[in-house]
Amino acid sequence: MTLSAAPTFPTALSLAAVRVQTRLNTALADRADEPVIHAMRYAMSGGKRLRGFLVLESAAMFGIAPETALSAAAAVEALHAYSLVHDDMPCMDDDDLRRGQPTVHVKWDEATAVLAGDALQTLAFELLTDPALGSAETRIALVRGLALASGAQGMVLGQALDIAAETAASPLSLDQITRLQAGKTGALIRWSAEAGAIIAGADPAPLRAYATALGLAFQIADDILDVTGDAAVAGKRLQKDATAGKATFVSLLGLEGAQARARSLVDEAEHHLASYGHKAHTLIDAARFVIARDS
Amino acid sequence: MTLSAAPTFPTALSLAAVRVQTRLNTALADRADEPVIHAMRYAMSGGKRLRGFLVLESAAMFGIAPETALSAAAAVEALHAYSLVHDDMPCMDDDDLRRGQPTVHVKWDEATAVLAGDALQTLAFELLTDPALGSAETRIALVRGLALASGAQGMVLGQALDIAAETAASPLSLDQITRLQAGKTGALIRWSAEAGAIIAGADPAPLRAYATALGLAFQIADDILDVTGDAAVAGKRLQKDATAGKATFVSLLGLEGAQARARSLVDEAEHHLASYGHKAHTLIDAARFVIARDS
Repeated sequence: MTLSAAPTFPTALSLAAVRVQTRLNTALADRADEPVIHAMRYAMSGGKRLRGFLVLESAAMFGIAPETALSAAAAVEALHAYSLVHDDMPCMDDDDLRRGQPTVHVKWDEATAVLAGDALQTLAFELLTDPALGSAETRIALVRGLALASGAQGMVLGQALDIAAETAASPLSLDQITRLQAGKTGALIRWSAEAGAIIAGADPAPLRAYATALGLAFQIADDILDVTGDAAVAGKRLQKDATAGKATFVSLLGLEGAQARARSLVDEAEHHLASYGHKAHTLIDAARFVIARDS
Repeated sequence: MTLSAAPTFPTALSLAAVRVQTRLNTALADRADEPVIHAMRYAMSGGKRLRGFLVLESAAMFGIAPETALSAAAAVEALHAYSLVHDDMPCMDDDDLRRGQPTVHVKWDEATAVLAGDALQTLAFELLTDPALGSAETRIALVRGLALASGAQGMVLGQALDIAAETAASPLSLDQITRLQAGKTGALIRWSAEAGAIIAGADPAPLRAYATALGLAFQIADDILDVTGDAAVAGKRLQKDATAGKATFVSLLGLEGAQARARSLVDEAEHHLASYGHKAHTLIDAARFVIARDS
């Protein structure tokens, strides 16, 4: 196999998005004809599917077929979708627009947003019980890892710290914002990359290190995009943080400093996967694209 | 062993409540000192612990020690607590009082209520990965069962139907309200009773049938309490449904009709456990108490 045989990141990402969407559609195919189910489908459509891609691609690095890992990819996207639905609510980030579409509480109402988000989290754990993922030991390891990554020591902690930052007397320090982001976006990205190793029964440490660097680079890129991006392309409101006077990696490091830090994190991410050779090509490609994206 | 050796329901319920509370305290012992964690602890304190009792007692019927089943009992109580925190929010049932105390969004704020509820759901699934519960196969069966019981085909569906009923042109029929309650309160009660059989590797069918009758009796008793009860004793606002013009088992069957239906469901619940003899004594006692409670 030569390097050119490995798909580039955009191709692999598009393919992963289609696969994940198909799996999510199947998961909700026979459910009741109720607004909460429609809102779940709506919240799960679109998006980059970066987390789902990371699951499928980290599994592929160990020779695991996409069909085997697919329910874990769909699970983390359902989990991510729940967090967005709740995060967009008026009492949280109060966003009207997501992926270029009205948010769930705007299109339906707040009660439907609460319930659809709740049921999307439940769906994530249901998906991880799919026997296709492997032995019960493998599936329990995935459940435990996702619970720890997304709960009050992971993603939810990051969201709570983010909300607390809005009313804090002074902007956060670089250490504080790094801790916040390690929870808010980093924990799910880490779980996604580790999932492939867990499904394959391989050592998850190199993928964990890769994803820790990738997650932070992703967030720094998000902060850069918030300043330099085009809302029409990004599909969401921009320059929110600067307007709100919140600390970001850009406000703390400057635009050039933030760009340099993101580049060095991508180098670090690449370094952690060096021992996998060409099999890590697409994941390394992903890290490079993450800091060059425009949405 | 004589009948008198089996604990009565109130004794067994109190003991279960202490055990469950201890397990929940342990689960959150080393977490961050953040409002969302405090709100989780607050939301998990108090309450009857009927669901946790059902887990421990159904396990005991098969000779399973409380320590073995305890994480499943704590899990369903964490799951139940999440549903109450979200259900009390202004956009849902809009309740200020729960178990005689201010609800989470009143004591903190709505964002904390969203996040604490979210993290309590996550904690429920984390608790089900506890190796003390048995093999990975057993734990995955518990995770899958709880996901199906609590998600968009179970509890959340019931909550959504309940909210839709508030704006419906006409009150619900008996069939519709029975379906609503089978999801809203029935599904978790069923899972709780089945959990003991799953942990023991026994047939869950008799416990499922028992719990289906028990869950409906429980809800009818709730509707009766809503009309005849004392808010100070119940620790929550009463006569909400009658004021809102919503259909209840009392409005549909009359007070005496509802009482008769609850009694016949208790007989039915007892019948399903008859083959277990004196081992089912406390569970049968529970069914009798459920329709005689004042809170």
